[in-house]
Amino acid sequence: MTETLDPQTAALDTTSPRGRAEKWLADFDEALRTRDIDAAVDLFALQSFWRDLVSFTWNIKTSEGRDGIRALLQETLERTEPVGWAFGEEPTEAGGVIECWLTFETAVGRGKGHLRLKDEDGELKAWTLLTSLRELKGYEENQGANRPQGVEHQLARGRKSWLEKKQEEEARLGRDMQPYVVVIGGGQGGIALGARLRQLKVPHVVLDNHDRPGDQWRGRYKSLCLHDPVWYDHLPYLPFPPNWPVFAPKDKIGDWLEMYTRVMDVPYWPKSRVTSATFDEDTKTWSVTVDRAGEEIVLHPKQLVFATGMSGKPNLPSFPGMDVFEGEQQHSSQHPGPEAYTGKKVVVIGSNNSAHDICGALWEHDADVTMVQRSSTHIVKSATLMDIGLGDLYSERAVEAGVTTDKADMIFASLPYRIMHEFQIPLYQQMAERDKDFYDRLEKVGFQHDWGDDGSGLFMKYLRRGSGYYIDVGASELVCDGKVKLAHGDVDHLTKNSVVLEDGTELPADLVVYATGYGSMNGWVADIIDQQTADKVGKVWGLGSDTTKDPGPWEGEQRNMWKPTQQEALWFHGGNLHQSRHYSLYLALQLKARYEGIPTPVYGLQEVHHTS
Amino acid sequence: MTETLDPQTAALDTTSPRGRAEKWLADFDEALRTRDIDAAVDLFALQSFWRDLVSFTWNIKTSEGRDGIRALLQETLERTEPVGWAFGEEPTEAGGVIECWLTFETAVGRGKGHLRLKDEDGELKAWTLLTSLRELKGYEENQGANRPQGVEHQLARGRKSWLEKKQEEEARLGRDMQPYVVVIGGGQGGIALGARLRQLKVPHVVLDNHDRPGDQWRGRYKSLCLHDPVWYDHLPYLPFPPNWPVFAPKDKIGDWLEMYTRVMDVPYWPKSRVTSATFDEDTKTWSVTVDRAGEEIVLHPKQLVFATGMSGKPNLPSFPGMDVFEGEQQHSSQHPGPEAYTGKKVVVIGSNNSAHDICGALWEHDADVTMVQRSSTHIVKSATLMDIGLGDLYSERAVEAGVTTDKADMIFASLPYRIMHEFQIPLYQQMAERDKDFYDRLEKVGFQHDWGDDGSGLFMKYLRRGSGYYIDVGASELVCDGKVKLAHGDVDHLTKNSVVLEDGTELPADLVVYATGYGSMNGWVADIIDQQTADKVGKVWGLGSDTTKDPGPWEGEQRNMWKPTQQEALWFHGGNLHQSRHYSLYLALQLKARYEGIPTPVYGLQEVHHTS
Repeated sequence: MTETLDPQTAALDTTSPRGRAEKWLADFDEALRTRDIDAAVDLFALQSFWRDLVSFTWNIKTSEGRDGIRALLQETLERTEPVGWAFGEEPTEAGGVIECWLTFETAVGRGKGHLRLKDEDGELKAWTLLTSLRELKGYEENQGANRPQGVEHQLARGRKSWLEKKQEEEARLGRDMQPYVVVIGGGQGGIALGARLRQLKVPHVVLDNHDRPGDQWRGRYKSLCLHDPVWYDHLPYLPFPPNWPVFAPKDKIGDWLEMYTRVMDVPYWPKSRVTSATFDEDTKTWSVTVDRAGEEIVLHPKQLVFATGMSGKPNLPSFPGMDVFEGEQQHSSQHPGPEAYTGKKVVVIGSNNSAHDICGALWEHDADVTMVQRSSTHIVKSATLMDIGLGDLYSERAVEAGVTTDKADMIFASLPYRIMHEFQIPLYQQMAERDKDFYDRLEKVGFQHDWGDDGSGLFMKYLRRGSGYYIDVGASELVCDGKVKLAHGDVDHLTKNSVVLEDGTELPADLVVYATGYGSMNGWVADIIDQQTADKVGKVWGLGSDTTKDPGPWEGEQRNMWKPTQQEALWFHGGNLHQSRHYSLYLALQLKARYEGIPTPVYGLQEVHHTS
Repeated sequence: MTETLDPQTAALDTTSPRGRAEKWLADFDEALRTRDIDAAVDLFALQSFWRDLVSFTWNIKTSEGRDGIRALLQETLERTEPVGWAFGEEPTEAGGVIECWLTFETAVGRGKGHLRLKDEDGELKAWTLLTSLRELKGYEENQGANRPQGVEHQLARGRKSWLEKKQEEEARLGRDMQPYVVVIGGGQGGIALGARLRQLKVPHVVLDNHDRPGDQWRGRYKSLCLHDPVWYDHLPYLPFPPNWPVFAPKDKIGDWLEMYTRVMDVPYWPKSRVTSATFDEDTKTWSVTVDRAGEEIVLHPKQLVFATGMSGKPNLPSFPGMDVFEGEQQHSSQHPGPEAYTGKKVVVIGSNNSAHDICGALWEHDADVTMVQRSSTHIVKSATLMDIGLGDLYSERAVEAGVTTDKADMIFASLPYRIMHEFQIPLYQQMAERDKDFYDRLEKVGFQHDWGDDGSGLFMKYLRRGSGYYIDVGASELVCDGKVKLAHGDVDHLTKNSVVLEDGTELPADLVVYATGYGSMNGWVADIIDQQTADKVGKVWGLGSDTTKDPGPWEGEQRNMWKPTQQEALWFHGGNLHQSRHYSLYLALQLKARYEGIPTPVYGLQEVHHTS
């Protein structure tokens, strides 16, 4: 599908989208080939963004404006040696913006790109450019036409079967064969990364303390279904089948993850808890101590990945009287489900996703439930979010329009974080309009809801703080109907059988659930490595948007995710299924390059502005 | 993608493939709508074939020539009510044949078709027509845009989670909830059918006597890999991922089948052996007695499917002296693999696939192996077969050319069995040429090989008799090199430590393996139901081609496979992965129609000419 751009012979058509884009791309190619950074920078608009996923920067990095792009090129152009810029498919134009899909090569790899061009002072300039490394030369994945044979068409004495090789690897791994990468955490993040690393032939192991893959989901409350629709949730290589539910029940996802781990041959140790890890600066090697079903094993990888869940460690508040209260108290992550609480009085502190899910399930089991709202929450109805928020990229209609999962991921990734909220705000305005009756009812019962600090809604809240919202799959209606009771304000103290709010309201309780959220993922680093390393690495997640729970300064990318950190050989991976799928590729390629000894000079290593 | 044909307004273009085909299809549509059978028949060539998969016939049936097609229409046209004939995609022309993809509807369902038109006496006539039922109206599968939601966006007391419903179904199935269909055998055939029936919401259970799904493959000799390439092997709904090996190792296939069973929610009872089954003519109900892990359970389904393997029951020969022989004797199906036979003398009776596989593995384990060739065998090299024999339909190049698995299956199904060998012969001539050196070497050591009675090669042998060939993945080279020794002729008798051939050759043996093939699948019917029913149903598999091991008269379709048999409510399913995938749809639709009470008058029920 790729067509080579040949500026010598192409009769330039300066009116069609393709013709105009060809001119830009030929100029860009020429500028890069001749290392003429001024000329290259001049091809970008005043407000412009070049987001690079590993191909130029060995980092995940957005360079903003001409100055940012100049700085990027000054440090990376010479060593990257980008060539062969071509269109992956026909450029299109809409609303004054020409959209292009690109392919290119660097000294060490092959990349794909996405480009938006628009007129500025009569000249076509790049508004957004996304470049991404897709494979390393000489280390292409065995897929498609390049898939493994599976059988040797020749018999030989002493040859080993697939099963024997697999069993031998299992027996040796961590004993006389060290993994190059240890991944802590075997949820969707760890598993997706594991599948990529297997494909890239990087020796690794995924450690998880549950009994089997998928238990991370199975163990949650029984009515839980994914809040994101199926089109958004595919794992790498093996998409869900066409009969897969839009919102998969948690046990079904559990089964899928278990199956996926097996058929993708992910080296996975269940029942394996990491008790400590230390990095030896001299040998550049980690020592990772693992309790594997009761046996202590020390692993010595070169790279350590935390895939322990972007939610990090539970935040448990400290209210006066918690030691006096005679009923049960749980963080939401410890809540075993509603079954045992029929007829009981339950107070749930918090009003985000977990609080709603837990309140709804408790009501379904005839508990007497009160939700304590301490601050405003963003609420969107699931069907509305799916239709307006994701429908253009991740839906059956997108599939029918030719937007493959990879294309959708690239389009998504091409929107610069700096201006992403501008794209989001009108969508949420539409949602507010469509569901006006619903919001009126919510307001009528006194539920405080918001659309984010700047009206940009759920996805920005997710990227900025990972909290502050509920995707309504029914619990909001219970709040509207008064079936789940609502109280407001912070907790003042607990008595032996009640929660007392700051305004004096006393809520009798047999059970108090603290749906009070989670800390930054570097909390796990403090636990497993040490506080010093956690502080050195700093806060994980968030953009530095200077909005609630996402303090500035502006970072430009999500803090510490899928890219080098201030601690050598320490990485973070995770997020929802979409992010686990998409970013696992770039993290895996960064690890693969290091494994093969390919130089990986990092441009723009993130600074640390917050420790938690 | 479907375009409606409107003969009123379309300006007929009588020169392009589409224009010419449109005219034919408009005439065909008109003839069928007006029930003008003469006119319809007149649209077919003198030598012509209409193969129907369930849509007109509620059978799998090829009608041959104008008389055959006339008879088909006389009995089925009125009740089928076919309408809405349209092109599914643009017709193409090659070698004087116009190829069309069709869509149509019947009174009860929607169909897809494939049509080849060619000139006969200056007029365009149908040479081959394939019609297939793809879904029943009102019972469309939940897939794609119609996939299940997975979550109700409303909370309600007493609602059950996906897991609870699943567990409840598992607990009740076969106790207070009877399956409508019982499938005996849970290899790829039973599992694929199970997945289809689940999608179609037909209560069923798949019974298998192994410990877990996939053990049918795991239990075989350790170096076994599939002999068919990955593109040919996909199961319904969930294709293998792009990194799947071309020829999957048997344990990997085992894992895939196990996981497939789980994620497709196939109701599957492992460790379950059917000890007997009887049909009550009055209640039209089966009583199927199952030993389920030691517990006896009697199931009462309305339909019974044998998916016990197209190979049927092992053929064990009866040679004088078998009772005298003091070493080990095994049928190939009982052979545990080579590990225990290092340094032993092994005589393998037979020279087809199993014989070669077993000899090769024994040689790899340093056994002293002699293959006894009793009759000629067809040999093709795996890579050659894959390239020349399957490459146009099932390969990476086919995928790249837009030949999806469904399209490939339809093209394959569109070739009438009566003339299929004519398409096959030139392919095998090519193979003979390409691998001439190899065949010369085989002949030099005295190996007797053939290309089938009419030179039509492997696939026809497979369809006609299911035996008589070896796809060489290395063992033939061992024969050429004399590493596996070769002897000829039938066995005269065994002594206490040797096999003596008819020509007096004595072969010392510690182990004798009888790679002597399998009987017809109705042998299982004799065992589980009774001999009378086995005889009533007759021989399973084969076309009646009047070639070796496939006696005439001509049947036109594979005997008893995937279609109604002479025993009401008794069905056979199976074959390779391709057949398990493709025909499971038509078998499932036949079962679904019966489950829903849709009339299913069978046209052309197969007569029985052979009992085994």
